[in-house]
Amino acid sequence: MSEFDLIRTHFARLGSERADVTLGVGDDCALLAVPAGQELAVSIDTLVSGVHFLPDCDPDALGHKALAVSLSDLAAMGAEPAWATLALTLPPDLPRTRPDWLAAFCRGLDALACEHGVAVVGGDTTSGPLAISIQVHGLVPPGQAVRRRGASPGDLVCVSGTLGDAGLALRLILSGEPVADGVRRRLDRPMPRIALGLALRGLASAMIDCSDGLAADLGHILEASGVGAEIDLAELPLSLEVAAVVGGTLDWSLPLASGDDYELCFTLPPAHRPALLGLASASGAPLTVIGRITEAPALRFRLPDGTDLRLARTGYDHFSD
Amino acid sequence: MSEFDLIRTHFARLGSERADVTLGVGDDCALLAVPAGQELAVSIDTLVSGVHFLPDCDPDALGHKALAVSLSDLAAMGAEPAWATLALTLPPDLPRTRPDWLAAFCRGLDALACEHGVAVVGGDTTSGPLAISIQVHGLVPPGQAVRRRGASPGDLVCVSGTLGDAGLALRLILSGEPVADGVRRRLDRPMPRIALGLALRGLASAMIDCSDGLAADLGHILEASGVGAEIDLAELPLSLEVAAVVGGTLDWSLPLASGDDYELCFTLPPAHRPALLGLASASGAPLTVIGRITEAPALRFRLPDGTDLRLARTGYDHFSD
Repeated sequence: MSEFDLIRTHFARLGSERADVTLGVGDDCALLAVPAGQELAVSIDTLVSGVHFLPDCDPDALGHKALAVSLSDLAAMGAEPAWATLALTLPPDLPRTRPDWLAAFCRGLDALACEHGVAVVGGDTTSGPLAISIQVHGLVPPGQAVRRRGASPGDLVCVSGTLGDAGLALRLILSGEPVADGVRRRLDRPMPRIALGLALRGLASAMIDCSDGLAADLGHILEASGVGAEIDLAELPLSLEVAAVVGGTLDWSLPLASGDDYELCFTLPPAHRPALLGLASASGAPLTVIGRITEAPALRFRLPDGTDLRLARTGYDHFSD
Repeated sequence: MSEFDLIRTHFARLGSERADVTLGVGDDCALLAVPAGQELAVSIDTLVSGVHFLPDCDPDALGHKALAVSLSDLAAMGAEPAWATLALTLPPDLPRTRPDWLAAFCRGLDALACEHGVAVVGGDTTSGPLAISIQVHGLVPPGQAVRRRGASPGDLVCVSGTLGDAGLALRLILSGEPVADGVRRRLDRPMPRIALGLALRGLASAMIDCSDGLAADLGHILEASGVGAEIDLAELPLSLEVAAVVGGTLDWSLPLASGDDYELCFTLPPAHRPALLGLASASGAPLTVIGRITEAPALRFRLPDGTDLRLARTGYDHFSD
């Protein structure tokens, strides 16, 4: 099967149909009509086999996750997803050795794309070590995107969902231990917090998605905003499974420094605190206040006993790992 | 050096500064202001080490080429380049073993980006086998993009520049033979025909860039347009070096079926023939009429002796190779 056949068979109709796609897959470029009064938000992310996912990973879950991690960046800006492009590098023998792989990959990607109204408008298929780059394109009215800079002393630090589940799942898989379904799902099929990101426009003063661990990602907000934060570890939202590990080992690295959470971390002026309950209910995302922005530029984690945690490493850095 | 340091050091200021970039590298997304009255043209391409370039390839040339192949897709639509994103996968030991690699890669990419007024607005750096995905974003007024479909019987088939030089360079390098500088440059530093693509808006009835070989790429125009073509091989624009190989071997695969030409192949209603000379002069691209579109859907190559060439394979298909 040639490159062109592959593209035609699998990529021609991925995701939603959208009236703003003037020309989709199959020409030198896709042509897109950006609506008047909207800015374009773009983000590209690559997943490499053996680095970001296990080589024998379920291709349906991989298709989901490759799109989810990029959509999570749109969520973190408060942008509404619109289009995606897919650059897929496949080992040349894969269509022969795993004939159902590509169809399953596309199924996972298609389902998440349709869920968020995303049209896959173009792509490139090449031969090489398995890797996936997806660029997403979203829309946001000028001035309404939520950036990393903008946090002010006194703002509340908030996160959605629970932290550390994907890191726990990976740890258990690598050590051959059983993994609870709910925890495993957080690693395999992260859900980008699109509805929450949109709802936080005009409320959050700064926002980022947790892809490299809370300490590193919150660190980016602090650096961009020129502020610090005090986080109360007793307030961290943890699943029962992650809480058991932290309680048993007193090691906070799972919720603070493991990757792949894809929850939103944002700062909120205290005046907006009453909106949190409604936001959580409207977006389907549990929200927790975990600390406060400080003028002093340090990031401090306060242990339940009132002392400060010393963190050996602050994040999951794919490149150095 | 961490992923974030790499991005900060090298990617923060690549390419031109543009007033339509609301937010560039360094947040979850870039924010771009698409001007009113313009559609967005996007294309993504991946180059994989050992497949699309030799592992010991000059990083400066690689940075140039990775952007050039994507810009060539904008040229082929008649779109004006505006922005690019870069997803770079680097072997984890590369910053140590080749400390100058990244700076040279960025230098090559930056020079071509600046030449075409392109701002690099975002990216992702990951660990893994060396590969580069670049998405380019261009602007084109609605209805003015030149597609693959649109060729009509009687239209002239035209190409820019010369064909087969990059294929010859690769063949000579792989066999350890000396390569003339001009031929080598066609492989290492292809020049996207941006000015020509823009000038052909409103004139060309269909267009594509030659990345997989003329036979395959023209084949896409014919298939999309539901027509055929007769190409007069005596008219093919060849460099002296490629002409010598074809003349000596009677093998036409270099100009017809080797990749990486990045010339434009377009069809032109005969009424526009007088415009060709001015187009060539204004765009700096030599232009040659090589044949004619036919109603019969076959693609025929007529040899100088009047018989038809039988071509064993029609293109350079990265995925099957």
